[in-house]
Amino acid sequence: MIRPSSDSVRTPASQSGAARRLLDAAVECFARRGYFATTTREIARAAGLSPAALYVHYPSKEEMLYQICHEGYTAALQEAESAIGGATGPEEALRDFTATFVAWHARYQMLARVCQYEVAALTPEHSQSVRQQRRRYQDLVESVLRQGEQQGIFDVGDIPGTARAILSLCADVARWYSPHLGDPGSVGALYAELAVRMAAGCARQTPSSP
Amino acid sequence: MIRPSSDSVRTPASQSGAARRLLDAAVECFARRGYFATTTREIARAAGLSPAALYVHYPSKEEMLYQICHEGYTAALQEAESAIGGATGPEEALRDFTATFVAWHARYQMLARVCQYEVAALTPEHSQSVRQQRRRYQDLVESVLRQGEQQGIFDVGDIPGTARAILSLCADVARWYSPHLGDPGSVGALYAELAVRMAAGCARQTPSSP
Repeated sequence: MIRPSSDSVRTPASQSGAARRLLDAAVECFARRGYFATTTREIARAAGLSPAALYVHYPSKEEMLYQICHEGYTAALQEAESAIGGATGPEEALRDFTATFVAWHARYQMLARVCQYEVAALTPEHSQSVRQQRRRYQDLVESVLRQGEQQGIFDVGDIPGTARAILSLCADVARWYSPHLGDPGSVGALYAELAVRMAAGCARQTPSSP
Repeated sequence: MIRPSSDSVRTPASQSGAARRLLDAAVECFARRGYFATTTREIARAAGLSPAALYVHYPSKEEMLYQICHEGYTAALQEAESAIGGATGPEEALRDFTATFVAWHARYQMLARVCQYEVAALTPEHSQSVRQQRRRYQDLVESVLRQGEQQGIFDVGDIPGTARAILSLCADVARWYSPHLGDPGSVGALYAELAVRMAAGCARQTPSSP
């Protein structure tokens, strides 16, 4: 029997017990073999439950995927917003956002992979809802870039494109991350610096030798 | 019957006829539903062939996946190396590499997704071979960054980490790209500028007003 074995599959849901075990098992199954290759029977078995028990908690496999994506995106956004909350300006906000978002994608790697790669399997209604959540990340980063631009500390030509690139850089951590390449915090710190470079160019530069 | 319908699924293989049709069909099936959810029967049907005809060309589904990954990575590397070939220095080399690599991931989006997301399904031997190909990309970008650092036009603290970030930025284009967000060339041009910013910081800056 497969059991969720690490933090990287954990869903941030508030429910406990069987419903949560099922969701964690679904994350692991989807991340390992893909949504379409996974059966509800396999998810139930991985959670140590009967196939019928799964339907007590979730009406369908797609509903499980939606709940995983919805809760994953909600939790990551809360962490990111909370990290930005204490920032004294746009540069610090961009650093804090990037470091937190990168660390989240490394720490909850399997959950993040499911959120990123399996959304095409959602119903149109659920897909629309997840797209709206993603839009909030995009709006958040665009807003930080715009503030920096207004204050003359960033020099961003294409604000939506640059915001998308910064988010993409963070999200792809879930694909390649491995602990031997650094702990989530140190990867986050490097990426925070890279994101500020992407946004600032040389706007921050004070005169110095060439 | 599903038929490969766009350039984004095309494999760059030299073979033509049935073997190639099968590989293109496999890319489309793997990209849509994942490797594990796809059967050789479905691939054969999508290519307009009988299940038995598939085994004339490929001994297994895994062998098809390996050939797709191997040829995909080979073709993208050739394009990138050829783009860099004419560069006059590290900054131009980094720009040309990034623009070409991004455009490749947008143009061959389905093929790139299979190369990026399905490698875990390869046998250990094939997986090792694909990892070696990936290592060549990493070495290429590290070498460009090192040259720029030596010439004082780049200011990179962590060369392997920054190379990985630039490659990751390019690769993730295959996940989010959609033509309504810009043609492959214009996304490539933006990312070329962002990659140079990531590498250069303010090393390029000549003295100017703050």
